[in-house]
Amino acid sequence: MIAVLKPNAPQAQIDNLIAWFKDQGLNVHVSVGDYQTILGLIGDTSKIDIELLEVLDIVESVKRITEPFKNANRKFHPDDTVIKIGNALIGNGHFAMIAGPCSVESENQVLEVATKVQAAGADMLRGGAFKPRTSPYDFQGMKAEGIELLLKAKKITGMPIVSEIMNANHLPLFEEVDVIQVGARNMQNFELLKELGKTNKTILLKRGLANNLKELLMSAEYIMAEGNENIILCERGIRTFETYTRNTIDLSAIPMLKELSHLPVIVDPSHATGIAKLVPPMALAAAAAGADGLMIEVHNDPIHALCDGMQSLTPQQYADLADKVRKIREVIK
Amino acid sequence: MIAVLKPNAPQAQIDNLIAWFKDQGLNVHVSVGDYQTILGLIGDTSKIDIELLEVLDIVESVKRITEPFKNANRKFHPDDTVIKIGNALIGNGHFAMIAGPCSVESENQVLEVATKVQAAGADMLRGGAFKPRTSPYDFQGMKAEGIELLLKAKKITGMPIVSEIMNANHLPLFEEVDVIQVGARNMQNFELLKELGKTNKTILLKRGLANNLKELLMSAEYIMAEGNENIILCERGIRTFETYTRNTIDLSAIPMLKELSHLPVIVDPSHATGIAKLVPPMALAAAAAGADGLMIEVHNDPIHALCDGMQSLTPQQYADLADKVRKIREVIK
Amino acid sequence: MIAVLKPNAPQAQIDNLIAWFKDQGLNVHVSVGDYQTILGLIGDTSKIDIELLEVLDIVESVKRITEPFKNANRKFHPDDTVIKIGNALIGNGHFAMIAGPCSVESENQVLEVATKVQAAGADMLRGGAFKPRTSPYDFQGMKAEGIELLLKAKKITGMPIVSEIMNANHLPLFEEVDVIQVGARNMQNFELLKELGKTNKTILLKRGLANNLKELLMSAEYIMAEGNENIILCERGIRTFETYTRNTIDLSAIPMLKELSHLPVIVDPSHATGIAKLVPPMALAAAAAGADGLMIEVHNDPIHALCDGMQSLTPQQYADLADKVRKIREVIK
Amino acid sequence: MIAVLKPNAPQAQIDNLIAWFKDQGLNVHVSVGDYQTILGLIGDTSKIDIELLEVLDIVESVKRITEPFKNANRKFHPDDTVIKIGNALIGNGHFAMIAGPCSVESENQVLEVATKVQAAGADMLRGGAFKPRTSPYDFQGMKAEGIELLLKAKKITGMPIVSEIMNANHLPLFEEVDVIQVGARNMQNFELLKELGKTNKTILLKRGLANNLKELLMSAEYIMAEGNENIILCERGIRTFETYTRNTIDLSAIPMLKELSHLPVIVDPSHATGIAKLVPPMALAAAAAGADGLMIEVHNDPIHALCDGMQSLTPQQYADLADKVRKIREVIK
Repeated sequence: MIAVLKPNAPQAQIDNLIAWFKDQGLNVHVSVGDYQTILGLIGDTSKIDIELLEVLDIVESVKRITEPFKNANRKFHPDDTVIKIGNALIGNGHFAMIAGPCSVESENQVLEVATKVQAAGADMLRGGAFKPRTSPYDFQGMKAEGIELLLKAKKITGMPIVSEIMNANHLPLFEEVDVIQVGARNMQNFELLKELGKTNKTILLKRGLANNLKELLMSAEYIMAEGNENIILCERGIRTFETYTRNTIDLSAIPMLKELSHLPVIVDPSHATGIAKLVPPMALAAAAAGADGLMIEVHNDPIHALCDGMQSLTPQQYADLADKVRKIREVIK
Repeated sequence: MIAVLKPNAPQAQIDNLIAWFKDQGLNVHVSVGDYQTILGLIGDTSKIDIELLEVLDIVESVKRITEPFKNANRKFHPDDTVIKIGNALIGNGHFAMIAGPCSVESENQVLEVATKVQAAGADMLRGGAFKPRTSPYDFQGMKAEGIELLLKAKKITGMPIVSEIMNANHLPLFEEVDVIQVGARNMQNFELLKELGKTNKTILLKRGLANNLKELLMSAEYIMAEGNENIILCERGIRTFETYTRNTIDLSAIPMLKELSHLPVIVDPSHATGIAKLVPPMALAAAAAGADGLMIEVHNDPIHALCDGMQSLTPQQYADLADKVRKIREVIK
Repeated sequence: MIAVLKPNAPQAQIDNLIAWFKDQGLNVHVSVGDYQTILGLIGDTSKIDIELLEVLDIVESVKRITEPFKNANRKFHPDDTVIKIGNALIGNGHFAMIAGPCSVESENQVLEVATKVQAAGADMLRGGAFKPRTSPYDFQGMKAEGIELLLKAKKITGMPIVSEIMNANHLPLFEEVDVIQVGARNMQNFELLKELGKTNKTILLKRGLANNLKELLMSAEYIMAEGNENIILCERGIRTFETYTRNTIDLSAIPMLKELSHLPVIVDPSHATGIAKLVPPMALAAAAAGADGLMIEVHNDPIHALCDGMQSLTPQQYADLADKVRKIREVIK
Repeated sequence: MIAVLKPNAPQAQIDNLIAWFKDQGLNVHVSVGDYQTILGLIGDTSKIDIELLEVLDIVESVKRITEPFKNANRKFHPDDTVIKIGNALIGNGHFAMIAGPCSVESENQVLEVATKVQAAGADMLRGGAFKPRTSPYDFQGMKAEGIELLLKAKKITGMPIVSEIMNANHLPLFEEVDVIQVGARNMQNFELLKELGKTNKTILLKRGLANNLKELLMSAEYIMAEGNENIILCERGIRTFETYTRNTIDLSAIPMLKELSHLPVIVDPSHATGIAKLVPPMALAAAAAGADGLMIEVHNDPIHALCDGMQSLTPQQYADLADKVRKIREVIK
């Protein structure tokens, strides 16, 4: 961390500040210039609140050199994290295919989609029971009943299940859910993140619509700081000025996140694009870019899906795609 | 609402769709063109889930003509809403000045700031007890103890108090808090909004960092749909590519929101800009643009504030500003 | 095109408007509702200025159903455009590899890079002679001398060359340049586009930093409306809130543009990411997503490049990448 | 400027780099830490190309402490610039009202609007003769004929005129135009900026749709570096995710630009909002925020304006607004 002091900072105040940094366990290197003094702070600065420094009279600006995330940081944890979920592995060369309907709608639907995606090689089943919707008048999911249907599908197929949580008070319902998803709109719901940090569930953390990668990693850090290190990061599209696609998928997030962090990174091309036709090219591109997995919406009857059906593939389209994904992964190995 | 059908839509399916719309209580006007058929839907379309329509085989696109928000919509509620909070009124020409420290830090601090802003004409006292911070390692607020200190200040000064909630489970702590603030990061925490809709508290709803005005009004609608109509909308800056200011204050939101909705609209220039020097010009501008109130950070000792001090005014600066705001309001009356 | 009229629009004015539309050669379908009248306009509406309509007293809103671009539109030109540049083909399954230094710096540099990328299978040589830089004090390119050096490399290697133009007055210098690039900042320099439309050169049109795909296609339309249909569209990253990467590469632009238009689409992963390490995964991803080509920066001595060297590959890295790109293309065939 | 070196940088290379900085006339302060070495560079660093440094093997990151703009920088020119245009002054307390039609359409139109806005106290007349339009099929302006009509209005009313240029080759047509406007889309048309820098005209430089203030000032620097210091900066709205307004007006740009630069700053609320109803509140807000002037569209017959009429005021609305603007300016004096 570097603190640039104001040109006219009085020496007594500079000395006080340096003493305070040393009290925090930091080494301080002072560089006195003609116009300004620069303090280089060496040590664990992740607990220094940058905004507290910036308000000081004598400080012009403060810049971090090291990242403010620690548990999620590859620098302190060079090896890829591998997470085991049921029989599936993800991370460090293990690729996970997650598939299923956007919303759970009925027992028939879930079981049919589950068996079909399993046949196509999916490792986990996804399905939304609690649905965050912009309008209070839109379908909000089957809730507890939806979780029940997913658990039934888990029992029958043996596939681990992934479902989104919107409220920490619902945690008891998720006891047998294998992977708990935090949606884009809740990426900075810090109260929820803290509660999930106290569980030992695998958390699938989606990037917020207008959040950058540092913020995503800081949200992972909220969970990890409470003791839960089983986190899968998920790129699902960001908000841009483009209107033809629902969001803009940021595939450079894959190699960038893997450079910054040891956590597995997957991509959800269905929500990112909002258009079924764009899902296969984006899924293949994500695999080519080195993703650790894909989460794809599959529906037995896309044109009547209750929610987000526009972006769902049929089981057959999914099977074809899964096949090509495997071939792409051969190329980049 | 207009549904544009695909060029080759079979007549039988078109007839089915028209019948379904009529079942929903809508009138349907059909316009048959050479290339495509257009359905004009007349009636209360706020409960039609636009995404469900768009996935239908025969539908090319669906566009709303009327807004998807209803309780918040000025069309159905032409008169300005006026909210009474203690002795303060806001809306329809009643202007409310809310002031106080970003974070509650100590009894001395809260009481000193409270009495000084009251002397300068503030109508309500704000103070953060629960603080949403990007990093888990940054100061998270005094929590319950902070609420206690605010209530003490309320008792002494008689001023209504405003404080942010981050978790519906904390509601019992807010029983005597007059205005409950929902922060930008929780604007789409729908579970929290629903719980607040079940209270009769005034809710100060801040616009999310990357949310548009329709989404802000839909979030107000979440609260109102549960029965609570006491909502103050708050512009607090949006995320843009500008880096000199923390966020970009969108003052056109004031007249635009007042055109769309009957709810009072206030502005928080402190968080929007992040720079104390910019707070007075932006506060005056907000008043000139017709805001119903201002929420401004004031600190007794800005350079040592624990949080966001960089953007706080001193009580004297606040008193000067409040005076000019009153004069601006005279001009635009 | 649909025009929604205001609820209280007088019949006489409606009749006038309908008559005017008919004069423009359009068919008009009128749908009279309880609250409003909707006009459906059928025919070639690309020449209707939507803003002129919206200002009319009786018009509430106007929405296009068909796209405002015509020459670039796949609907009116279903087959992929194939462009021949020297011996290279691009479009409809023909993939073009363009490589070379960001800036032309010296004869040695250009010739060395040219022969090395040619050996690695590159089809065309790129090199910047005129450089748009944010600061007037930064290196602005070798200009005419740079073009000379590229032409020398063309003569020796036989490779077609690609270089950026910033001023239509420089066109005489580009007489032997095979592909003229329009940079992101000039995507809406309409005066430049019109002049390029009067040439028969292939134009490589880069997407602007904050422009959407419709605007990109409208800029292609500016060139095509003057008679030049040899256009290659290029995704090169858009501005978002992400700061780890220079820009955010939008790979969904590839399938989306190919859906909307018949023009070839290539990707420049070097400028999009600004980081050499991210170039290979993004290049592979672009190939997997169906791009018609790649433009990649290669430098003989990346750490001393005069401009944008941070994002350049070495010839060896490029050769390895080109090999994997070919394999990816095999998979998606 | 601070250069942070990589942890393992070899001493010989560090010494070379330091020697090179000294050759550039900079003082170098070296701070050696346990993990990394930091170089503080003191002196005129505006001519150092930051990208050239960042690519060096041994450099981790480079950060400017001082701004990269020099002629436009208030630090080197503390007093407000005042520009004289005909009889009008702008800057340092002198406020300029610029008004007129979006597009010049006819002699009658220009003369009528000119005399009416003059009567309402406007200092200058604006009118577009060359119009940048997204579509090649939309009205492109009356061009040379439009300039002629503006000059006629200038002759009759004595008001200085403001009109937009799109092509440096058109400069001879602008010989008697008092203020040459550079539109948002051309803010980074560096070739045009350089040509305007060689004239002695006052240049009204509009902020680009997705450009930040540093980029705006760097574009001003392009003009100033060629010798022309008569520049008016203009905020005209930026692109955000909001859709109710055409763009989002950034009024915090006013005090921020005035902090950073000595150049006058005006606001164009007409283009920023795109809605006539929002123009008065935003114009008042801009005045309250300390703008040095306003550029407002006025039309004799808004509902039939050829271009952007939706955002134009009638002369009467303009006169009422001008009156309130004067009162606001009294308050903030």
